[in-house]
Amino acid sequence: MNILLILGHPKPNSFNGAIAEQSKAVLEKLGHETIFHDLYQERFDPVLPADEENLPDDELPAFLQEHLRHFKEAEGIIFVHPNWWGGPPAILRGWLDRVVRGNSCYQFTKDGVVSHVGGKIVQIFSTSNTPRDVEMNVYGDPMENFWKIVVFGLLGTKSFERRNFESVIVSTPEERQGWLAEVATILKRRFGKR
Amino acid sequence: MNILLILGHPKPNSFNGAIAEQSKAVLEKLGHETIFHDLYQERFDPVLPADEENLPDDELPAFLQEHLRHFKEAEGIIFVHPNWWGGPPAILRGWLDRVVRGNSCYQFTKDGVVSHVGGKIVQIFSTSNTPRDVEMNVYGDPMENFWKIVVFGLLGTKSFERRNFESVIVSTPEERQGWLAEVATILKRRFGKR
Repeated sequence: MNILLILGHPKPNSFNGAIAEQSKAVLEKLGHETIFHDLYQERFDPVLPADEENLPDDELPAFLQEHLRHFKEAEGIIFVHPNWWGGPPAILRGWLDRVVRGNSCYQFTKDGVVSHVGGKIVQIFSTSNTPRDVEMNVYGDPMENFWKIVVFGLLGTKSFERRNFESVIVSTPEERQGWLAEVATILKRRFGKR
Repeated sequence: MNILLILGHPKPNSFNGAIAEQSKAVLEKLGHETIFHDLYQERFDPVLPADEENLPDDELPAFLQEHLRHFKEAEGIIFVHPNWWGGPPAILRGWLDRVVRGNSCYQFTKDGVVSHVGGKIVQIFSTSNTPRDVEMNVYGDPMENFWKIVVFGLLGTKSFERRNFESVIVSTPEERQGWLAEVATILKRRFGKR
């Protein structure tokens, strides 16, 4: 399989970075072609410029054509990011703004949204410091709603899972090791041979 | 009053731009000091760099110190933006990531969040193309949850309102004129003399 792995965190040596590295290692061991984009290290520009929406795909800047091709060709996609204001950091929000384009990835029609990218296996690994009950009951679990309903619901994705690790800030090294082992278990289950 | 007006839209001549201009005109007519930041025109960089979180306020880049000061000093704040993936464009998400800083604007304590910026009058003017019933019932009204609960709920804001104008894409010039008149009515009610 072609797998796309996207990291949205400022520090490569963060726990998010460790999740991405672990994911890459597991996916490659499973024999998958894995393309890894560390958006911060690439200095991905998340600001959608005026009029870019109306450009045909082949007139986009080269780096964006590449991201778009990687996204469209991926049979599986994994996002790794922390919780900032109930969702991904701006750099990853802007990746969605620019890469997951109307008319190219999906279309609005009289009969609703027609998706051209709905067949992927999607896995989100997110991290947060907010206690789970507060995130669920006070904030209404906005990150789950964002990824599952707003983004991949619109895109018609059937195979969606998210695992949030919390609270990173008070976790021990042993807990984080356990979480990395769980990353491997999840990826083997979702992307391993049936 | 000091009012801060923030626009997050690529095109100054968009309907969002018209809402911002209308807001500025009305607020100034009401006698308020109004600071207007058009994030796109300023080329605001929404990508929070590694380690910026730990900098003291007075070691931030000058433009960010200015945004932070404007935010903290504002007695009222108005955001104008479209609906991209159920929330503001990345440039405005990143404004929140960088400007509304922990320890400066609010603090996490054993007893929960203590906000230093909770006393503002907050007004959101958002626009969208999604029909209202789909936004509410399919997507769960994520923008309302984002601004009201995740951001200004955490910040302890008592005086919060949002008005969403939809569907812009199928609206007539007359409807948009009516909406601009409504912007004026809302601002006079919320920021006018009592």
